[in-house]
Amino acid sequence: MLSSPVGSGSTAILLLSCPDRVGLVARIAHFIYERGGNILDLDEHVDVEERHFFLRVSWSLDRFSIPASDLEEAFAPLAREFGATWKIRLSGRKLRTAVFVSKYDHCLREILWRHSLGEFGIEIPLIVSNHPDLRPMAEHNGIPFQVIPVTPEGKPEAERRQIELCEANDIDTIVLARYMQVLSPQFTERYPGRIINIHHSFLPAFIGGNPYRQAYHRGVKIIGATSHYVTDELDEGQIIEQDIIRISHKDTLDDLVRKGRDLERLVLARALRLHSEHRILVNGRKTVIFD
Amino acid sequence: MLSSPVGSGSTAILLLSCPDRVGLVARIAHFIYERGGNILDLDEHVDVEERHFFLRVSWSLDRFSIPASDLEEAFAPLAREFGATWKIRLSGRKLRTAVFVSKYDHCLREILWRHSLGEFGIEIPLIVSNHPDLRPMAEHNGIPFQVIPVTPEGKPEAERRQIELCEANDIDTIVLARYMQVLSPQFTERYPGRIINIHHSFLPAFIGGNPYRQAYHRGVKIIGATSHYVTDELDEGQIIEQDIIRISHKDTLDDLVRKGRDLERLVLARALRLHSEHRILVNGRKTVIFD
Amino acid sequence: MLSSPVGSGSTAILLLSCPDRVGLVARIAHFIYERGGNILDLDEHVDVEERHFFLRVSWSLDRFSIPASDLEEAFAPLAREFGATWKIRLSGRKLRTAVFVSKYDHCLREILWRHSLGEFGIEIPLIVSNHPDLRPMAEHNGIPFQVIPVTPEGKPEAERRQIELCEANDIDTIVLARYMQVLSPQFTERYPGRIINIHHSFLPAFIGGNPYRQAYHRGVKIIGATSHYVTDELDEGQIIEQDIIRISHKDTLDDLVRKGRDLERLVLARALRLHSEHRILVNGRKTVIFD
Amino acid sequence: MLSSPVGSGSTAILLLSCPDRVGLVARIAHFIYERGGNILDLDEHVDVEERHFFLRVSWSLDRFSIPASDLEEAFAPLAREFGATWKIRLSGRKLRTAVFVSKYDHCLREILWRHSLGEFGIEIPLIVSNHPDLRPMAEHNGIPFQVIPVTPEGKPEAERRQIELCEANDIDTIVLARYMQVLSPQFTERYPGRIINIHHSFLPAFIGGNPYRQAYHRGVKIIGATSHYVTDELDEGQIIEQDIIRISHKDTLDDLVRKGRDLERLVLARALRLHSEHRILVNGRKTVIFD
Repeated sequence: MLSSPVGSGSTAILLLSCPDRVGLVARIAHFIYERGGNILDLDEHVDVEERHFFLRVSWSLDRFSIPASDLEEAFAPLAREFGATWKIRLSGRKLRTAVFVSKYDHCLREILWRHSLGEFGIEIPLIVSNHPDLRPMAEHNGIPFQVIPVTPEGKPEAERRQIELCEANDIDTIVLARYMQVLSPQFTERYPGRIINIHHSFLPAFIGGNPYRQAYHRGVKIIGATSHYVTDELDEGQIIEQDIIRISHKDTLDDLVRKGRDLERLVLARALRLHSEHRILVNGRKTVIFD
Repeated sequence: MLSSPVGSGSTAILLLSCPDRVGLVARIAHFIYERGGNILDLDEHVDVEERHFFLRVSWSLDRFSIPASDLEEAFAPLAREFGATWKIRLSGRKLRTAVFVSKYDHCLREILWRHSLGEFGIEIPLIVSNHPDLRPMAEHNGIPFQVIPVTPEGKPEAERRQIELCEANDIDTIVLARYMQVLSPQFTERYPGRIINIHHSFLPAFIGGNPYRQAYHRGVKIIGATSHYVTDELDEGQIIEQDIIRISHKDTLDDLVRKGRDLERLVLARALRLHSEHRILVNGRKTVIFD
Repeated sequence: MLSSPVGSGSTAILLLSCPDRVGLVARIAHFIYERGGNILDLDEHVDVEERHFFLRVSWSLDRFSIPASDLEEAFAPLAREFGATWKIRLSGRKLRTAVFVSKYDHCLREILWRHSLGEFGIEIPLIVSNHPDLRPMAEHNGIPFQVIPVTPEGKPEAERRQIELCEANDIDTIVLARYMQVLSPQFTERYPGRIINIHHSFLPAFIGGNPYRQAYHRGVKIIGATSHYVTDELDEGQIIEQDIIRISHKDTLDDLVRKGRDLERLVLARALRLHSEHRILVNGRKTVIFD
Repeated sequence: MLSSPVGSGSTAILLLSCPDRVGLVARIAHFIYERGGNILDLDEHVDVEERHFFLRVSWSLDRFSIPASDLEEAFAPLAREFGATWKIRLSGRKLRTAVFVSKYDHCLREILWRHSLGEFGIEIPLIVSNHPDLRPMAEHNGIPFQVIPVTPEGKPEAERRQIELCEANDIDTIVLARYMQVLSPQFTERYPGRIINIHHSFLPAFIGGNPYRQAYHRGVKIIGATSHYVTDELDEGQIIEQDIIRISHKDTLDDLVRKGRDLERLVLARALRLHSEHRILVNGRKTVIFD
C-alpha cells in the first residue's frame, strides 16, 4: 500500500462485480500482493438486497512481476471462479472520447477548458454536431469538428455516419454535451455505460423537453441537473451525478436557464471526471460511485 | 419607515394581489403614511407573464390615526379600485393552528419544540390523529389530542368529525405533519391556502406513496422534501419550501428514511414559519414568498 | 408598478441610505409617481441596531415628466431633507469596468464568457496584468491588455500607471480576478465600494496567503470563496457573496485548488452581477444586497 | 465479503494506522480470511505527504475460528510488525457516553431523541451540567442528571468531581452538547479523541466566544457549525464535521442564533454517529472519516 511517488510508472485499475461471497477482498488483494503489486486505493461495496459485490482497486505496476500485457490473462481464472463482470484499465491508456453538441456552447466550453488543464486524462479526437455553430470553438482547441445534420427522416443515415466516425476514431466514450437529438436504441446499445448525457433537470422530475419551462410553471423552489448514462429509455439511464440550485418567485424563465447553465456544465464535468478515472460501476438501474 | 422599538405596540400586515398598474406602491404607501402609519417592511413582486402585482407591507399602528378595527373598512375602497384580492392581519392575533398526525413523531416533535420557543407566533389548540400513538407527546405539551380513526368506508364520517373539531376550535390553518391519509376535495376546498403538507420527496419527483423506496430504486444521488399547500390534486399544491440532502450508493433504504426525517421536519417548520408570518401569497399553481 | 414591456425605453435606479424616519417609502414612491414614473421594483431594509434605512427602487422613464438629465437635480431637495447618501443610475449607462489579473485564467475566462452572453450589462475597455500570460485570451475577446509589471520597490510607480490607465478609460469599477498583488490604501481609497476582489477562502477563515494550504493543514471539511469590496485593510472589506464546497480527507491540496477554482469563478461572477445591476449598498463593514 | 443477514451475530471493527508499506491491505484481509472472517466493509486511505496508512475494516464473527476475546492477542503480532496504532471494537459493546450540558437544550434534545431511535448504538448512563435547568429533560428520558456548578476558582474541584463521575460510570466518550465551560488540559488529556464538542461557527472562523455576534458584525453571508474533538487548545481540535446555512442582511442576531441551532444539533448528531460507529481516525490535526 505504498503510495506511488509522483511521476513514477504506470498503475492498473480493476473494476469488478460479482455475486457476493466470503473472501473476495482477501483473495483479490492477495493476487496483487503476491505479484509484487502495491495497492494504491481499494473501495468495495455490497448491494445487500441483491447480494452483489462491487470492487475498484488500483495498484502500482512498478515492481509487478508480470507484464501489463499479461495481466488480464493472469486474472481471468480468478474472475471466472467468482462469476465476475470485470475490466482492467492501465493508467497510460487515455479514454478516447467524442463530444456530441448542437448549438449551446457552455458544456463543450467547460469540457475543453478542463481538458486543457488535464483534469480528465482523456483524448478528444472528435467533436460531432448537427449544427455548424460551434466549429470555431473546436478549431480554436485544435479538435476535428464534424457536422452531421439530423432530420427526422434522415436520422438512421445520420447515426450510421456518426457510428462510422466513432469507429474510425476508435472512440470509447461519447459525451452528449447538450446534444439536442435523442439517440436511437440501435445507437445506444453499441455503447452501454459509455454514453454520458446531461439532462437539465433534477431527474426523475421534468423528464423530456423544456424542463426549465416545466419547473418554472410548477413553481419549484429548487432546480437541478442530472448526468446519467444513456440507455434506450429516454432520461431513464443510470444516474452518475446530480446537483441543485435554489430559485425564487423572482426568477424568470431566463434566470432559470442562466442558473441552470452553471449546474449543467459542472455536473457534466464531474460525471466525466468520475467516468474517465474508472470510478463508476453500473448496478442495474443504479451506479456505484467510488470517489 | 422608523423601525419599531422592541416591545412596542401592534403592527398590521397587508397582503394584496391585483392586476398590475401604475402607482400601486405609491398609493398604498401613501394610504399608510397619511394615517400616521410607520412602514416597517415592504416587499413587492410583479409576475411579468401574467401582469399581476403582489405586495406585502407591514406597518406600526403606534401612532395610527384610525383604530385597527376600522382598518379593513378604510382600505376597502382602494382595494376595490385596484380589483385586488387582499387581507389584513394584526400582530396581536395568533393563527389558530391544528396539527394532523398519524404515527411518525418527528414533524410533530419539531413543531411543538419550536412552538415552545415562540418561533411561530401561533396557537395550537388541537392535535388530530387517526392513531393514538402520539397522545403522550401531545399531553406532555398540554395540547388536546383527538383520535379519529379513518377507514376507507368511514372516511366521509371521519372528515365530518375533523371539520367539526376544527370549527369548534376556530381553526384557521391545518398542518399535516406526516398525516398518512389523503384528504378529500370536500375537505381541502374548505381551507384553500390554509392546509400545509410535507411530502417526503423533491416534488414533482416521486409523487404518491413510498417516495424513499422510489428514490432508492431509481438510484438518485440527492433526495428532497417539499412543503406545499394542499389542493384537491394529490401532491400538486403550491410549493412553499423545498430542501435536499446528498446520498450515495452506500445508503440503504433505512438511511434514506433517516436522512429524510431531518429534511422533512426542517422544511415543514420553515414553511409553517413563513405561513404564520403571513409571508406567502398564492399565484395560481405557484407561491410568492416574501422572506 | 406596471412591468415594462420587453425592449421598451430606459429605466432609472435609485440607491439611497439615510437615518430611519417615518414616511421614507411613501414620499420617495410619491416623488416617482407624481412625475409619471412607473415603479418596476422596490426593496428596502432597516438596520434596526443602527436605525439606518436602505432603499433600492427602479422605475420606467417611458412617461416620466422630466428628462433623465434633470433627475438628480429634481431629487436632490428630498435627499437633502433626509440626510441621505444616494445615487441614481440610468439603464442606458453601462458600468465601465477594468479587470486586473495575474496568471490564473479561470476568473477572467468566466467573466469574459458571461460578458459575451450579456449577463453583466457592463463594458470592459481594459484588462490590466502584471504578467503577459493572459494576453491571448484578452485579444481573442478584442479587449486591450496592458502589462504593468509590479516589483516591491516599483509598486508606487506601477499603481500610478494603473490609475492613469483607469482614468484615461473612464473606469468606474475594478474587478480583481485573482490579481496577486495587494493594492495600496492610496489606490483603494480612490475607488471606495468599486473594487471587487475574490478571496479563495471562506472569510474570515484563512485570511492572507495560501488559504487552500491553510485549509488543507487545518483539516476543514468545507472550503469556501468570498467576493468582497476592497478597503485598505487586507481581506477585511465588505462581503458581497460567499459559497462553499464539501471536501474530505481524500482531497489533496491539488484537489482543493481544483474544487476551489469553481467556487472562485462563480462567486466572483455573482458578485459582479449584483454590483453591475446596482443591487449592493454598503452598510459600514457590511453589505445590503437587494437581489 | 458475504453481507451479514439481518439480526445475525456480532461483528468486529479494526481501526488501524501505521507507516505506509507494501502489502498492508492484503495481509490484514488475509488475517481475517484465514480465520473464517467475512469482511463486511473495508476502507483505507494513505496520507501521501506523511506516507501514513489508515484502515477501517469490519467483519462478521459468525464463523470466526477464534473467540472474540482472543482477537486482540491474535492480531497483536501483525500490528507490531507494522508499527501500528490500532484498536478492535466489537459490535455488542456499546460506547458508554456522557453528555455535558449547560442551559441550551437543543443539542441534548436532539441526541436523546436520536438515541431513543437507536441511531447511535450507544449507552448514555450520565448527563452532567453546571446548571439544573435541563434536569426535567434528562429525567423524562430516564437518565441520571448530575449538577456540578463551576466557578472560576472552583473549576479544578469541579473537574475532579466530573472525572470521578465519568470513571464511576465507566465512560468512554464525552459529548459537549453546548457545554459552556472550557475544559482544562488536565481534563482533556484523559480523553484524547474521545471528547466531542460542537462549536457554533465555521471554524477556524470566529474562534472563541459569541461567534454569532462576530459573524453578524462581520457581515458574512453564510454561517456554520463545527463538531470537533477537544484537545488542549481552544477550538483547535480535529474537525469531524461541518455544515453551513446561508444568511442575508435581513437576518438579525436572533435569526442567526435560531438558524444556527439547526446546524449545531445536526452537525453534532452526525459527528456522534460517526464516532459511535468507529468511523473516525485521528491524523495529527486532522481526521480521516470512513463513512
